[in-house]
Amino acid sequence: MQPLYEGKAKRLYTTQEQDVLRIVYKDEATAFNGEKKEVFAGKGELNNRLTSHFFEILEQAGIPTHFIERVSEREQLVRRVTIIPLEVVVRNVVAGSLSKRLGIEEGTVLETPIVEFYYKDDTLGDPLVTSSHINLLKIATSEELKQLSDKALRVNEVLQPYFRQNGITLIDFKLEYGKMADGTILLADEISPDTCRLWDQATGEHLDKDVFRRNIGSLTETYQTLFNRLGGNTQ
Amino acid sequence: MQPLYEGKAKRLYTTQEQDVLRIVYKDEATAFNGEKKEVFAGKGELNNRLTSHFFEILEQAGIPTHFIERVSEREQLVRRVTIIPLEVVVRNVVAGSLSKRLGIEEGTVLETPIVEFYYKDDTLGDPLVTSSHINLLKIATSEELKQLSDKALRVNEVLQPYFRQNGITLIDFKLEYGKMADGTILLADEISPDTCRLWDQATGEHLDKDVFRRNIGSLTETYQTLFNRLGGNTQ
Ligand SMILES: Nc1ncnc2c1ncn2[C@@H]1O[C@H](COP(=O)(O)OP(=O)(O)O)[C@@H](O)[C@H]1O
Ligand SMILES: Nc1ncnc2c1ncn2[C@@H]1O[C@H](COP(=O)(O)OP(=O)(O)O)[C@@H](O)[C@H]1O
Ligand SMILES: [Mg+2]
Ligand SMILES: [Mg+2]
Repeated sequence: MQPLYEGKAKRLYTTQEQDVLRIVYKDEATAFNGEKKEVFAGKGELNNRLTSHFFEILEQAGIPTHFIERVSEREQLVRRVTIIPLEVVVRNVVAGSLSKRLGIEEGTVLETPIVEFYYKDDTLGDPLVTSSHINLLKIATSEELKQLSDKALRVNEVLQPYFRQNGITLIDFKLEYGKMADGTILLADEISPDTCRLWDQATGEHLDKDVFRRNIGSLTETYQTLFNRLGGNTQ
Repeated sequence: MQPLYEGKAKRLYTTQEQDVLRIVYKDEATAFNGEKKEVFAGKGELNNRLTSHFFEILEQAGIPTHFIERVSEREQLVRRVTIIPLEVVVRNVVAGSLSKRLGIEEGTVLETPIVEFYYKDDTLGDPLVTSSHINLLKIATSEELKQLSDKALRVNEVLQPYFRQNGITLIDFKLEYGKMADGTILLADEISPDTCRLWDQATGEHLDKDVFRRNIGSLTETYQTLFNRLGGNTQ
Protein backbone atom coordinates (compact mmCIF):
# COMPACT_ATOMS: atom_id res chain seq x y z
CA MET A 1 0.00 0.00 0.00
CA GLN A 2 2.92 2.33 -0.73
CA PRO A 3 2.05 5.74 -2.20
CA LEU A 4 3.58 5.70 -5.67
CA TYR A 5 2.65 9.02 -7.28
CA GLU A 6 0.36 11.96 -6.67
CA GLY A 7 -0.96 13.74 -9.75
CA LYS A 8 -3.35 16.64 -10.11
CA ALA A 9 -6.51 14.48 -9.99
CA LYS A 10 -5.48 11.10 -8.58
CA ARG A 11 -3.15 9.35 -6.16
CA LEU A 12 -1.58 6.02 -7.12
CA TYR A 13 -0.70 3.31 -4.60
CA THR A 14 1.02 -0.03 -5.02
CA THR A 15 -0.84 -3.14 -3.82
CA GLN A 16 0.19 -6.62 -2.68
CA GLU A 17 0.07 -7.60 -6.33
CA GLN A 18 3.09 -6.46 -8.31
CA ASP A 19 1.17 -5.44 -11.44
CA VAL A 20 -1.93 -3.96 -9.78
CA LEU A 21 -2.26 -0.35 -8.61
CA ARG A 22 -4.92 1.34 -6.52
CA ILE A 23 -6.06 4.72 -7.77
CA VAL A 24 -7.67 7.20 -5.37
CA TYR A 25 -9.69 9.94 -7.05
CA LYS A 26 -9.12 13.32 -5.42
CA ASP A 27 -11.72 16.06 -4.91
CA GLU A 28 -9.40 18.67 -6.40
CA ALA A 29 -10.03 20.22 -9.81
CA THR A 30 -7.25 21.98 -11.70
CA ALA A 31 -7.13 23.87 -14.99
CA PHE A 32 -4.62 25.77 -17.13
CA ASN A 33 -1.76 23.46 -16.22
CA GLY A 34 -2.49 23.68 -12.49
CA GLU A 35 -2.75 27.50 -12.36
CA LYS A 36 -6.43 27.35 -11.34
CA LYS A 37 -7.17 24.96 -8.49
CA GLU A 38 -10.16 24.24 -6.22
CA VAL A 39 -11.56 21.44 -4.05
CA PHE A 40 -15.09 20.15 -4.72
CA ALA A 41 -16.49 17.68 -2.17
CA GLY A 42 -17.91 14.71 -4.08
CA LYS A 43 -15.89 15.20 -7.29
CA GLY A 44 -13.56 12.25 -6.59
CA GLU A 45 -16.46 9.88 -6.03
CA LEU A 46 -18.31 11.04 -9.17
CA ASN A 47 -15.23 10.76 -11.38
CA ASN A 48 -14.36 7.35 -9.95
CA ARG A 49 -17.89 6.12 -10.71
CA LEU A 50 -18.03 7.70 -14.18
CA THR A 51 -14.59 6.57 -15.32
CA SER A 52 -15.26 3.03 -14.03
CA HIS A 53 -18.53 3.00 -15.95
CA PHE A 54 -16.91 4.21 -19.20
CA PHE A 55 -14.05 1.71 -18.95
CA GLU A 56 -16.59 -1.09 -18.45
CA ILE A 57 -18.45 -0.01 -21.58
CA LEU A 58 -15.16 -0.08 -23.50
CA GLU A 59 -14.15 -3.49 -22.12
CA GLN A 60 -17.57 -4.83 -23.17
CA ALA A 61 -16.88 -3.47 -26.66
CA GLY A 62 -13.62 -5.41 -26.72
CA ILE A 63 -11.23 -2.52 -26.04
CA PRO A 64 -8.60 -3.57 -23.49
CA THR A 65 -8.11 -1.06 -20.65
CA HIS A 66 -6.16 -0.92 -17.39
CA PHE A 67 -9.42 -1.05 -15.39
CA ILE A 68 -9.94 -3.99 -13.03
CA GLU A 69 -12.67 -2.89 -10.60
CA ARG A 70 -14.04 -0.07 -8.52
CA VAL A 71 -13.40 -1.04 -4.89
CA SER A 72 -14.82 1.90 -2.91
CA GLU A 73 -16.39 5.31 -3.40
CA ARG A 74 -13.15 6.90 -4.44
CA GLU A 75 -10.94 3.93 -5.27
CA GLN A 76 -10.40 1.57 -8.15
CA LEU A 77 -7.88 -1.13 -8.98
CA VAL A 78 -6.04 -0.96 -12.31
CA ARG A 79 -3.30 -2.80 -14.11
CA ARG A 80 0.04 -1.11 -13.62
CA VAL A 81 1.52 0.26 -16.82
CA THR A 82 4.32 2.57 -17.86
CA ILE A 83 2.46 5.59 -19.16
CA ILE A 84 3.33 6.69 -22.70
CA PRO A 85 3.80 10.46 -22.22
CA LEU A 86 1.24 11.48 -24.83
CA GLU A 87 -2.22 12.94 -24.43
CA VAL A 88 -4.19 11.51 -27.32
CA VAL A 89 -7.10 13.82 -28.13
CA VAL A 90 -10.05 12.87 -30.34
CA ARG A 91 -12.34 15.62 -31.58
CA ASN A 92 -15.78 15.39 -33.19
CA VAL A 93 -16.64 19.07 -32.86
CA VAL A 94 -14.34 22.10 -32.72
CA ALA A 95 -13.84 23.47 -29.21
CA GLY A 96 -11.22 24.80 -26.81
CA SER A 97 -7.61 24.92 -28.04
CA LEU A 98 -8.47 23.75 -31.56
CA SER A 99 -10.86 26.66 -31.97
CA LYS A 100 -8.12 29.06 -30.80
CA ARG A 101 -5.37 27.43 -32.86
CA LEU A 102 -7.19 27.44 -36.18
CA GLY A 103 -9.62 30.31 -35.67
CA ILE A 104 -12.64 28.05 -36.24
CA GLU A 105 -15.80 28.72 -34.25
CA GLU A 106 -16.56 26.46 -31.29
CA GLY A 107 -19.35 24.08 -32.20
CA THR A 108 -18.26 23.54 -35.81
CA VAL A 109 -18.91 19.86 -36.52
CA LEU A 110 -15.95 18.02 -38.05
CA GLU A 111 -16.69 15.98 -41.17
CA THR A 112 -14.49 13.26 -39.78
CA PRO A 113 -13.04 12.98 -36.25
CA ILE A 114 -9.47 14.15 -35.83
CA VAL A 115 -6.77 12.78 -33.55
CA GLU A 116 -4.07 14.98 -32.01
CA PHE A 117 -1.08 14.18 -29.86
CA TYR A 118 0.14 16.40 -27.03
CA TYR A 119 3.41 15.77 -25.23
CA LYS A 120 2.48 15.08 -21.58
CA ASP A 121 4.93 17.41 -19.84
CA ASP A 122 3.63 19.98 -17.35
CA THR A 123 6.81 22.09 -17.44
CA LEU A 124 6.40 22.47 -21.23
CA GLY A 125 2.64 23.04 -20.96
CA ASP A 126 1.66 19.83 -22.80
CA PRO A 127 2.52 21.12 -26.31
CA LEU A 128 0.96 19.82 -29.51
CA VAL A 129 3.39 17.47 -31.24
CA THR A 130 3.58 15.96 -34.71
CA SER A 131 4.66 12.41 -35.51
CA SER A 132 8.15 13.79 -36.33
CA HIS A 133 8.42 15.29 -32.85
CA ILE A 134 7.25 12.05 -31.26
CA ASN A 135 9.78 10.14 -33.32
CA LEU A 136 12.52 12.59 -32.32
CA LEU A 137 11.59 12.28 -28.62
CA LYS A 138 11.59 8.47 -29.07
CA ILE A 139 8.24 8.32 -27.26
CA ALA A 140 6.65 5.83 -29.65
CA THR A 141 7.38 4.20 -32.97
CA SER A 142 5.30 5.02 -36.05
CA GLU A 143 3.56 1.65 -35.67
CA GLU A 144 2.72 2.35 -32.03
CA LEU A 145 1.47 5.82 -32.96
CA LYS A 146 -0.81 4.29 -35.58
CA GLN A 147 -2.06 1.89 -32.90
CA LEU A 148 -2.79 4.74 -30.45
CA SER A 149 -4.64 6.69 -33.12
CA ASP A 150 -6.68 3.67 -34.29
CA LYS A 151 -7.58 2.68 -30.73
CA ALA A 152 -8.59 6.28 -29.94
CA LEU A 153 -10.94 6.31 -32.91
CA ARG A 154 -12.38 2.94 -31.77
CA VAL A 155 -13.05 4.45 -28.33
CA ASN A 156 -14.82 7.31 -30.10
CA GLU A 157 -16.92 4.86 -32.11
CA VAL A 158 -18.10 3.27 -28.86
CA LEU A 159 -18.54 6.35 -26.67
CA GLN A 160 -20.03 8.74 -29.22
CA PRO A 161 -23.23 6.67 -29.78
CA TYR A 162 -23.40 5.87 -26.06
CA PHE A 163 -23.54 9.57 -25.19
CA ARG A 164 -25.81 10.35 -28.14
CA GLN A 165 -28.38 7.85 -26.81
CA ASN A 166 -28.33 9.81 -23.58
CA GLY A 167 -28.93 13.13 -25.31
CA ILE A 168 -25.32 14.25 -25.01
CA THR A 169 -22.79 15.19 -27.72
CA LEU A 170 -19.26 13.92 -27.23
CA ILE A 171 -17.33 16.98 -28.43
CA ASP A 172 -13.80 15.78 -27.67
CA PHE A 173 -11.82 13.72 -25.16
CA LYS A 174 -8.28 12.99 -24.03
CA LEU A 175 -6.85 9.50 -23.58
CA GLU A 176 -3.62 8.19 -22.08
CA TYR A 177 -2.10 4.84 -22.83
CA GLY A 178 0.45 2.71 -21.04
CA LYS A 179 2.60 -0.30 -21.72
CA MET A 180 2.47 -3.49 -19.67
CA ALA A 181 5.70 -5.34 -18.87
CA ASP A 182 5.26 -7.49 -22.01
CA GLY A 183 4.89 -4.39 -24.23
CA THR A 184 1.12 -4.65 -24.70
CA ILE A 185 -0.48 -1.23 -25.01
CA LEU A 186 -3.48 -0.63 -22.73
CA LEU A 187 -5.85 2.30 -22.48
CA ALA A 188 -5.08 3.77 -19.03
CA ASP A 189 -5.69 6.84 -16.84
CA GLU A 190 -9.27 8.09 -16.73
CA ILE A 191 -12.24 9.02 -18.92
CA SER A 192 -14.39 11.51 -17.04
CA PRO A 193 -15.92 14.97 -17.34
CA ASP A 194 -12.40 16.19 -16.44
CA THR A 195 -11.08 14.73 -19.69
CA CYS A 196 -14.07 14.96 -22.07
CA ARG A 197 -16.15 17.79 -23.46
CA LEU A 198 -19.83 16.85 -23.26
CA TRP A 199 -22.59 19.16 -24.43
CA ASP A 200 -26.30 18.68 -23.90
CA GLN A 201 -27.74 17.93 -27.35
CA ALA A 202 -30.82 20.12 -26.84
CA THR A 203 -29.52 23.07 -24.83
CA GLY A 204 -25.77 23.06 -25.54
CA GLU A 205 -25.17 23.11 -21.78
CA HIS A 206 -21.64 22.09 -20.79
CA LEU A 207 -21.56 18.87 -18.76
CA ASP A 208 -17.80 18.85 -18.18
CA LYS A 209 -14.83 20.65 -16.61
CA ASP A 210 -15.35 23.70 -18.85
CA VAL A 211 -17.88 24.91 -16.23
CA PHE A 212 -14.88 25.21 -13.89
CA ARG A 213 -12.35 26.47 -16.49
CA ARG A 214 -14.78 29.15 -17.68
CA ASN A 215 -16.57 29.86 -14.38
CA ILE A 216 -19.96 29.13 -15.90
CA GLY A 217 -21.48 26.80 -13.32
CA SER A 218 -21.01 24.57 -10.32
CA LEU A 219 -18.64 21.68 -11.01
CA THR A 220 -20.20 19.31 -8.50
CA GLU A 221 -23.76 19.99 -9.67
CA THR A 222 -22.70 19.58 -13.30
CA TYR A 223 -20.91 16.26 -12.70
CA GLN A 224 -23.88 15.05 -10.64
CA THR A 225 -26.26 16.02 -13.46
CA LEU A 226 -24.13 14.06 -15.92
CA PHE A 227 -24.09 11.10 -13.55
CA ASN A 228 -27.88 11.18 -13.24
CA ARG A 229 -28.34 11.59 -17.00
CA LEU A 230 -26.30 8.43 -17.59
CA GLY A 231 -28.51 6.32 -15.34
CA GLY A 232 -27.32 7.51 -11.94
CA ASN A 233 -26.38 4.01 -10.93
CA THR A 234 -23.37 3.64 -13.20
CA GLN A 235 -21.76 0.45 -11.84
CA MET B 1 2.97 48.41 -62.13
CA GLN B 2 0.06 48.30 -59.69
CA PRO B 3 0.99 47.70 -56.03
CA LEU B 4 -0.58 44.34 -55.21
CA TYR B 5 0.35 43.58 -51.62
CA GLU B 6 2.67 44.88 -48.93
CA GLY B 7 3.99 42.31 -46.45
CA LYS B 8 6.40 42.65 -43.57
CA ALA B 9 9.54 42.21 -45.73
CA LYS B 10 8.49 42.76 -49.33
CA ARG B 11 6.16 44.70 -51.59
CA LEU B 12 4.56 42.98 -54.59
CA TYR B 13 3.67 44.76 -57.84
CA THR B 14 1.93 43.56 -60.94
CA THR B 15 3.77 43.95 -64.27
CA GLN B 16 2.72 44.18 -67.90
CA GLU B 17 2.79 40.41 -67.96
CA GLN B 18 -0.22 38.82 -66.35
CA ASP B 19 1.67 36.01 -64.62
CA VAL B 20 4.79 37.95 -63.62
CA LEU B 21 5.18 39.97 -60.41
CA ARG B 22 7.87 42.39 -59.32
CA ILE B 23 9.03 41.98 -55.72
CA VAL B 24 10.68 44.89 -53.91
CA TYR B 25 12.70 43.90 -50.86
CA LYS B 26 12.19 46.31 -47.97
CA ASP B 27 14.82 47.45 -45.47
CA GLU B 28 12.49 46.69 -42.56
CA ALA B 29 13.10 43.75 -40.22
CA THR B 30 10.33 42.38 -38.03
CA ALA B 31 10.20 39.66 -35.40
CA PHE B 32 7.69 38.08 -33.02
CA ASN B 33 4.83 38.40 -35.46
CA GLY B 34 5.58 42.06 -36.15
CA GLU B 35 5.88 43.13 -32.49
CA LYS B 36 9.54 44.06 -32.92
CA LYS B 37 10.30 46.24 -35.93
CA GLU B 38 13.29 48.22 -37.19
CA VAL B 39 14.69 49.62 -40.46
CA PHE B 40 18.20 48.62 -41.56
CA ALA B 41 19.61 50.45 -44.59
CA GLY B 42 20.98 47.87 -47.00
CA LYS B 43 18.93 44.90 -45.74
CA GLY B 44 16.60 44.89 -48.75
CA GLU B 45 19.48 44.80 -51.20
CA LEU B 46 21.32 42.05 -49.33
CA ASN B 47 18.20 39.87 -49.04
CA ASN B 48 17.33 40.43 -52.69
CA ARG B 49 20.84 39.34 -53.73
CA LEU B 50 20.96 36.38 -51.33
CA THR B 51 17.50 35.03 -52.14
CA SER B 52 18.15 35.40 -55.89
CA HIS B 53 21.40 33.48 -55.47
CA PHE B 54 19.76 30.65 -53.48
CA PHE B 55 16.89 30.31 -55.96
CA GLU B 56 19.41 30.08 -58.81
CA ILE B 57 21.24 27.30 -57.01
CA LEU B 58 17.94 25.46 -56.58
CA GLU B 59 16.92 25.99 -60.23
CA GLN B 60 20.31 24.60 -61.28
CA ALA B 61 19.61 21.56 -59.11
CA GLY B 62 16.33 21.05 -60.95
CA ILE B 63 13.96 22.44 -58.31
CA PRO B 64 11.35 24.69 -59.93
CA THR B 65 10.91 28.05 -58.18
CA HIS B 66 9.00 31.27 -58.84
CA PHE B 67 12.26 33.14 -59.47
CA ILE B 68 12.77 34.72 -62.91
CA GLU B 69 15.53 37.30 -62.45
CA ARG B 70 16.95 40.01 -60.24
CA VAL B 71 16.32 43.29 -62.05
CA SER B 72 17.79 45.90 -59.70
CA GLU B 73 19.40 46.24 -56.29
CA ARG B 74 16.14 45.67 -54.46
CA GLU B 75 13.90 44.17 -57.12
CA GLN B 76 13.32 40.80 -58.71
CA LEU B 77 10.77 39.35 -61.10
CA VAL B 78 8.92 36.20 -60.12
CA ARG B 79 6.16 34.03 -61.46
CA ARG B 80 2.82 34.95 -59.91
CA VAL B 81 1.32 32.18 -57.77
CA THR B 82 -1.46 31.77 -55.27
CA ILE B 83 0.43 31.24 -52.04
CA ILE B 84 -0.48 28.08 -50.09
CA PRO B 85 -0.91 29.48 -46.56
CA LEU B 86 1.63 27.16 -44.93
CA GLU B 87 5.09 27.87 -43.65
CA VAL B 88 7.05 24.70 -44.35
CA VAL B 89 9.96 24.44 -41.92
CA VAL B 90 12.89 22.02 -42.34
CA ARG B 91 15.20 21.48 -39.37
CA ASN B 92 18.63 19.84 -39.23
CA VAL B 93 19.53 21.04 -35.75
CA VAL B 94 17.24 21.94 -32.82
CA ALA B 95 16.79 25.70 -32.34
CA GLY B 96 14.19 28.34 -31.62
CA SER B 97 10.59 27.24 -31.17
CA LEU B 98 11.41 23.52 -31.48
CA SER B 99 13.81 23.81 -28.55
CA LYS B 100 11.11 25.56 -26.50
CA ARG B 101 8.33 23.20 -27.58
CA LEU B 102 10.12 19.96 -26.76
CA GLY B 103 12.58 21.11 -24.10
CA ILE B 104 15.57 19.98 -26.17
CA GLU B 105 18.74 22.06 -26.03
CA GLU B 106 19.51 24.37 -28.97
CA GLY B 107 22.28 22.89 -31.05
CA THR B 108 21.15 19.26 -30.69
CA VAL B 109 21.76 17.67 -34.10
CA LEU B 110 18.77 15.76 -35.49
CA GLU B 111 19.47 12.22 -36.71
CA THR B 112 17.26 12.95 -39.66
CA PRO B 113 15.84 16.31 -40.79
CA ILE B 114 12.27 17.03 -39.75
CA VAL B 115 9.58 18.94 -41.61
CA GLU B 116 6.92 20.99 -39.83
CA PHE B 117 3.93 22.92 -41.11
CA TYR B 118 2.75 26.21 -39.65
CA TYR B 119 -0.50 27.84 -40.67
CA LYS B 120 0.45 31.20 -42.25
CA ASP B 121 -1.96 33.47 -40.39
CA ASP B 122 -0.62 36.50 -38.51
CA THR B 123 -3.77 36.94 -36.42
CA LEU B 124 -3.42 33.37 -35.14
CA GLY B 125 0.36 33.74 -34.66
CA ASP B 126 1.32 31.17 -37.34
CA PRO B 127 0.43 28.10 -35.24
CA LEU B 128 1.95 24.66 -35.72
CA VAL B 129 -0.52 22.42 -37.54
CA THR B 130 -0.74 18.69 -38.17
CA SER B 131 -1.85 17.05 -41.39
CA SER B 132 -5.34 16.63 -39.85
CA HIS B 133 -5.57 20.37 -39.24
CA ILE B 134 -4.42 21.11 -42.79
CA ASN B 135 -6.98 18.68 -44.09
CA LEU B 136 -9.68 20.27 -41.95
CA LEU B 137 -8.75 23.77 -43.17
CA LYS B 138 -8.78 22.41 -46.75
CA ILE B 139 -5.41 24.09 -47.37
CA ALA B 140 -3.88 21.16 -49.19
CA THR B 141 -4.65 17.54 -49.97
CA SER B 142 -2.57 14.73 -48.44
CA GLU B 143 -0.85 14.27 -51.80
CA GLU B 144 0.02 17.96 -52.02
CA LEU B 145 1.30 17.90 -48.45
CA LYS B 146 3.54 14.96 -49.29
CA GLN B 147 4.79 16.96 -52.29
CA LEU B 148 5.55 20.03 -50.14
CA SER B 149 7.40 17.90 -47.61
CA ASP B 150 9.40 16.00 -50.27
CA LYS B 151 10.32 19.21 -52.10
CA ALA B 152 11.38 20.84 -48.82
CA LEU B 153 13.70 17.93 -48.07
CA ARG B 154 15.11 18.21 -51.62
CA VAL B 155 15.83 21.91 -51.01
CA ASN B 156 17.62 20.88 -47.82
CA GLU B 157 19.68 18.30 -49.72
CA VAL B 158 20.87 21.06 -52.06
CA LEU B 159 21.36 23.93 -49.61
CA GLN B 160 22.85 22.01 -46.67
CA PRO B 161 26.02 20.94 -48.56
CA TYR B 162 26.23 24.34 -50.25
CA PHE B 163 26.41 26.10 -46.86
CA ARG B 164 28.66 23.40 -45.41
CA GLN B 165 31.23 24.04 -48.17
CA ASN B 166 31.21 27.66 -47.05
CA GLY B 167 31.81 26.78 -43.41
CA ILE B 168 28.22 27.38 -42.39
CA THR B 169 25.68 25.02 -40.81
CA LEU B 170 22.13 25.22 -42.14
CA ILE B 171 20.24 24.82 -38.86
CA ASP B 172 16.69 25.30 -40.19
CA PHE B 173 14.73 27.26 -42.77
CA LYS B 174 11.18 28.20 -43.75
CA LEU B 175 9.71 27.81 -47.23
CA GLU B 176 6.49 28.98 -48.84
CA TYR B 177 4.91 27.44 -51.89
CA GLY B 178 2.38 28.67 -54.36
CA LYS B 179 0.20 27.30 -57.12
CA MET B 180 0.29 28.52 -60.69
CA ALA B 181 -2.93 28.87 -62.67
CA ASP B 182 -2.53 25.30 -64.00
CA GLY B 183 -2.17 23.89 -60.46
CA THR B 184 1.60 23.33 -60.62
CA ILE B 185 3.23 23.87 -57.23
CA LEU B 186 6.27 26.19 -57.22
CA LEU B 187 8.67 27.13 -54.47
CA ALA B 188 7.94 30.83 -53.88
CA ASP B 189 8.57 33.70 -51.46
CA GLU B 190 12.19 34.08 -50.28
CA ILE B 191 15.14 32.17 -48.87
CA SER B 192 17.32 34.57 -46.93
CA PRO B 193 18.89 35.11 -43.50
CA ASP B 194 15.39 36.32 -42.53
CA THR B 195 14.02 32.82 -43.13
CA CYS B 196 17.01 30.53 -42.35
CA ARG B 197 19.10 29.86 -39.28
CA LEU B 198 22.77 29.77 -40.26
CA TRP B 199 25.55 29.18 -37.75
CA ASP B 200 29.25 29.55 -38.38
CA GLN B 201 30.67 26.00 -38.25
CA ALA B 202 33.75 27.00 -36.29
CA THR B 203 32.50 29.67 -33.91
CA GLY B 204 28.75 29.02 -33.70
CA GLU B 205 28.19 32.69 -34.57
CA HIS B 206 24.66 33.45 -35.79
CA LEU B 207 24.55 34.63 -39.41
CA ASP B 208 20.80 35.22 -39.54
CA LYS B 209 17.86 37.21 -38.16
CA ASP B 210 18.39 35.79 -34.66
CA VAL B 211 20.95 38.60 -34.15
CA PHE B 212 17.96 40.96 -34.42
CA ARG B 213 15.44 38.77 -32.56
CA ARG B 214 17.88 38.24 -29.67
CA ASN B 215 19.69 41.60 -29.78
CA ILE B 216 23.07 39.92 -30.16
CA GLY B 217 24.58 41.84 -33.05
CA SER B 218 24.11 44.20 -35.94
CA LEU B 219 21.72 42.87 -38.55
CA THR B 220 23.29 44.70 -41.49
CA GLU B 221 26.84 43.69 -40.55
CA THR B 222 25.74 40.09 -40.07
CA TYR B 223 23.93 39.87 -43.41
CA GLN B 224 26.90 41.56 -45.11
CA THR B 225 29.28 39.02 -43.49
CA LEU B 226 27.10 36.18 -44.78
CA PHE B 227 27.05 37.75 -48.24
CA ASN B 228 30.86 38.04 -48.26
CA ARG B 229 31.28 34.50 -46.93
CA LEU B 230 29.22 33.17 -49.83
CA GLY B 231 31.42 34.83 -52.43
CA GLY B 232 30.24 38.41 -52.10
CA ASN B 233 29.31 38.53 -55.73
CA THR B 234 26.29 36.25 -55.54
CA GLN B 235 24.66 36.72 -58.92
N1 LIG C 1 -2.57 2.14 -14.97
C1 LIG C 1 -1.68 3.09 -14.66
N2 LIG C 1 -0.40 2.76 -14.31
C2 LIG C 1 0.51 3.72 -14.01
N3 LIG C 1 0.24 5.04 -14.02
C3 LIG C 1 -1.01 5.43 -14.37
C4 LIG C 1 -2.02 4.48 -14.71
N4 LIG C 1 -3.14 5.17 -15.04
C5 LIG C 1 -2.85 6.49 -14.92
N5 LIG C 1 -1.57 6.66 -14.51
C6 LIG C 1 -0.90 7.94 -14.22
O1 LIG C 1 -1.28 8.36 -12.95
C7 LIG C 1 -0.88 9.71 -12.78
C8 LIG C 1 -1.86 10.43 -11.89
O2 LIG C 1 -3.00 10.85 -12.60
P1 LIG C 1 -3.41 12.40 -12.58
O3 LIG C 1 -3.70 12.83 -11.18
O4 LIG C 1 -4.47 12.56 -13.61
O5 LIG C 1 -2.01 13.05 -13.03
P2 LIG C 1 -1.67 14.36 -13.90
O6 LIG C 1 -1.47 15.45 -12.92
O7 LIG C 1 -0.42 13.96 -14.63
O8 LIG C 1 -2.82 14.58 -14.85
C9 LIG C 1 -0.72 10.25 -14.19
O9 LIG C 1 0.67 10.43 -14.43
C10 LIG C 1 -1.26 9.13 -15.07
O10 LIG C 1 -0.62 9.12 -16.33
N1 LIG D 1 5.44 34.41 -56.42
C1 LIG D 1 4.56 34.94 -55.58
N2 LIG D 1 3.29 35.21 -55.98
C2 LIG D 1 2.40 35.75 -55.11
N3 LIG D 1 2.68 36.04 -53.83
C3 LIG D 1 3.92 35.79 -53.38
C4 LIG D 1 4.92 35.22 -54.20
N4 LIG D 1 6.05 35.07 -53.46
C5 LIG D 1 5.76 35.52 -52.22
N5 LIG D 1 4.49 35.95 -52.14
C6 LIG D 1 3.81 36.54 -50.98
O1 LIG D 1 4.22 37.88 -50.87
C7 LIG D 1 3.83 38.38 -49.61
C8 LIG D 1 4.83 39.41 -49.14
O2 LIG D 1 5.96 38.82 -48.57
P1 LIG D 1 6.38 39.20 -47.07
O3 LIG D 1 6.69 40.67 -47.00
O4 LIG D 1 7.45 38.24 -46.65
O5 LIG D 1 5.00 38.97 -46.31
P2 LIG D 1 4.65 38.42 -44.84
O6 LIG D 1 4.47 39.66 -44.01
O7 LIG D 1 3.38 37.63 -45.03
O8 LIG D 1 5.80 37.54 -44.38
C9 LIG D 1 3.66 37.15 -48.73
O9 LIG D 1 2.27 36.98 -48.48
C10 LIG D 1 4.18 36.02 -49.61
O10 LIG D 1 3.55 34.80 -49.29
MG1 LIG E 1 -4.47 13.60 -15.41
MG1 LIG F 1 7.44 36.77 -45.23
